[in-house]
Amino acid sequence: MAEKIVITIARQYGSGGREIGEKVARALGIKHYDENLITLAAREGNLDETVASKADESAANSLLYTLALGSNFFGSAMNFGYKPPLNDKLFLLQSDVIRRAAEEGSCVIIGRCADYVLRDHPRRLSVFVYGDLPHRKARVMERHEGLTEAQAIDLINKTDRRRSSYYNFYTGNKWGKYDNYHLAVNSSLLGIDKTAEMIADAAKLLMEKE
Amino acid sequence: MAEKIVITIARQYGSGGREIGEKVARALGIKHYDENLITLAAREGNLDETVASKADESAANSLLYTLALGSNFFGSAMNFGYKPPLNDKLFLLQSDVIRRAAEEGSCVIIGRCADYVLRDHPRRLSVFVYGDLPHRKARVMERHEGLTEAQAIDLINKTDRRRSSYYNFYTGNKWGKYDNYHLAVNSSLLGIDKTAEMIADAAKLLMEKE
Repeated sequence: MAEKIVITIARQYGSGGREIGEKVARALGIKHYDENLITLAAREGNLDETVASKADESAANSLLYTLALGSNFFGSAMNFGYKPPLNDKLFLLQSDVIRRAAEEGSCVIIGRCADYVLRDHPRRLSVFVYGDLPHRKARVMERHEGLTEAQAIDLINKTDRRRSSYYNFYTGNKWGKYDNYHLAVNSSLLGIDKTAEMIADAAKLLMEKE
Repeated sequence: MAEKIVITIARQYGSGGREIGEKVARALGIKHYDENLITLAAREGNLDETVASKADESAANSLLYTLALGSNFFGSAMNFGYKPPLNDKLFLLQSDVIRRAAEEGSCVIIGRCADYVLRDHPRRLSVFVYGDLPHRKARVMERHEGLTEAQAIDLINKTDRRRSSYYNFYTGNKWGKYDNYHLAVNSSLLGIDKTAEMIADAAKLLMEKE
């Protein structure tokens, strides 16, 4: 790899964006950072391996935590027992973590307006992952046993509204609008694995460029 | 190729979408149909090889014709000396040509709301190609010598407004909004050739599916 690359992934809830991001990182042999890790690192002020492994473990359960803790929270920071209001300081700390991560080496960064934070990065692929509602609903219900269809849809709508407000507030852009991204992809077309393969292929083309 | 595939390409003016569509078709060894061909076939009532070759030749010059003929036209039908108003009959004829083309074999279809017309096609990849304004402007000025920067921007804005109105009117959807497409891609990131390669790769993944 000639030069460091960063792949930022924004995603609709239930689209599989986080999992896709992890698979892209694995396919390219680079690190990945998700929302939880970034928030944790922002609060603890470091991004070392200990934090990374800790966050990786907790990430798997984060959505169950989110549900268990109810919907009156802002962002995934709640997963760590912290309830920030629309918090500029946390956003700045997270942005700093994101910039440091991208400086350290090639990586995939999921969520937290990383596409905006790293808008001047010389070799970046900014991705938005979305999906058809039936697929997203099925995915959310599969992950959270006992959720009714109506509850799954409600969770999807609320989570996306929260992501959208957060993004729009901090970037001044519009979440999901194509011109914020280099690539917007519907994961329902190819499924999680092949969508990840497609994004990894695009990243390889970007690495070959020039 | 197990099953017929169709790739529909909608695009911003100056993004290179038409050229990308042609390259995708070439990479996959399938036919491509652009706006001009579809409009011509709709008017002549057939889609045989004669028409195809005729339209392919004229396509190269169509943008110059468009400019020469001024901006008071609707869609590329003008390239053939025909001035339809917002014309439902022509839209229906074009839609019919598009459906017949997709039935005949795997193909790439550029423009004319093909993503909407073929929305029930079982194996379709719906693409929106856009680009950064400086790249689009440069592309338009390169193609049309003598155009000032301001004129190029004006031409881009007017053409996109026309495409957008046309699409929104006939589909009831919103041109460029991600959920109309499976894949939206900024051609400025990778350039024409590599963007075509990326879309062809995605199409191959779709062909492999199941």
